[in-house]
Amino acid sequence: MSKLLDSVVGELSRLPGVGRRTALRLAMHILKMEREDVASMTGAIDDFRNNICRCAKCGNLSDEEVCEICSDPSRDRSTVCVVEQVGDLLSIEKTHQYRGVYNVLGGVISPMQGIAPSDLRIDLLLDRIAAGDVREVIIAISASVEGETTMFYLMNRLRGYSGVKITTIARGIGFGDELEYVDEHTITQAMMNRREINQ
Amino acid sequence: MSKLLDSVVGELSRLPGVGRRTALRLAMHILKMEREDVASMTGAIDDFRNNICRCAKCGNLSDEEVCEICSDPSRDRSTVCVVEQVGDLLSIEKTHQYRGVYNVLGGVISPMQGIAPSDLRIDLLLDRIAAGDVREVIIAISASVEGETTMFYLMNRLRGYSGVKITTIARGIGFGDELEYVDEHTITQAMMNRREINQ
Repeated sequence: MSKLLDSVVGELSRLPGVGRRTALRLAMHILKMEREDVASMTGAIDDFRNNICRCAKCGNLSDEEVCEICSDPSRDRSTVCVVEQVGDLLSIEKTHQYRGVYNVLGGVISPMQGIAPSDLRIDLLLDRIAAGDVREVIIAISASVEGETTMFYLMNRLRGYSGVKITTIARGIGFGDELEYVDEHTITQAMMNRREINQ
Repeated sequence: MSKLLDSVVGELSRLPGVGRRTALRLAMHILKMEREDVASMTGAIDDFRNNICRCAKCGNLSDEEVCEICSDPSRDRSTVCVVEQVGDLLSIEKTHQYRGVYNVLGGVISPMQGIAPSDLRIDLLLDRIAAGDVREVIIAISASVEGETTMFYLMNRLRGYSGVKITTIARGIGFGDELEYVDEHTITQAMMNRREINQ
């Protein structure tokens, strides 16, 4: 086998979800791409890896020391939404409805995976609260066992701060979800938290 | 969104089978990789794209003008196995049973995708046959409509050369395939080409 091909297949198959077969398919695609497009892709990867930072205020990925959201004067600094990872932040941003700021934990507490509270960016949140600006902390963590554990841990840590309301995103049936396929726990929560329809 | 992140997600999502969500997951993985490992991956991609050649004798991917297989004196040049693409060649090589050489067509005839016979590397095969070394051409092309079309086209082109046997790989039930899930055409072929068991 060609050394160049063997090398690119070996390197690509280190990526998650990419086996040797997929890596070969990617290599054949790369071969069909224009050289400058390949150079632009590999350049973007190197540039991202070498120059991206974590925002010093919220843990979001950022080109600067402080991210675009934290440095945007139009965002409401009195509301902090706590998320697990950057992807969750991007999903909330896509709605264009939320105008507060974030705290990106960088994971959830998981003894199984060896993730302790000290591995999460909780200090940034406490610093922000200690500075006195925060009036509401929205916990938007996934409803897994690890997620719930993390939520209870956070609630304990935040208990001492008076004047800070702690909320969590609503659990319920998603738009487009078929009730038949929704798990019992979600249905139970959706029934308990039912709303009156104003006619 | 961070420009560096936006750029890497945009570039990665040009790859086949990679949407923006997968691209983001890859980016987060790249962030966790060591810088030198990322540099080694992007280097391998650039090196592959800029320096890989097609073997002048068979169309295989190669680091040199002639590939390792064609330049290996122990390979039997009188047998040429015609395959669609490099992945097929690699699959046959993995068996360590075939000692002949190859001809990599680079696709199959497909009017729907605008692939004409002139787009395939058939001339290399004819050159090899004209040189007088070839005694058998094994056609190992997938049994799709396009594959069969390509096989008949090749058989027509090779008709003029006496002394060259043309064969095709056996169709039948694969090891581990459950008969229940095998298509009718394959079962028909497997029944027709049944072999007597020597007891």
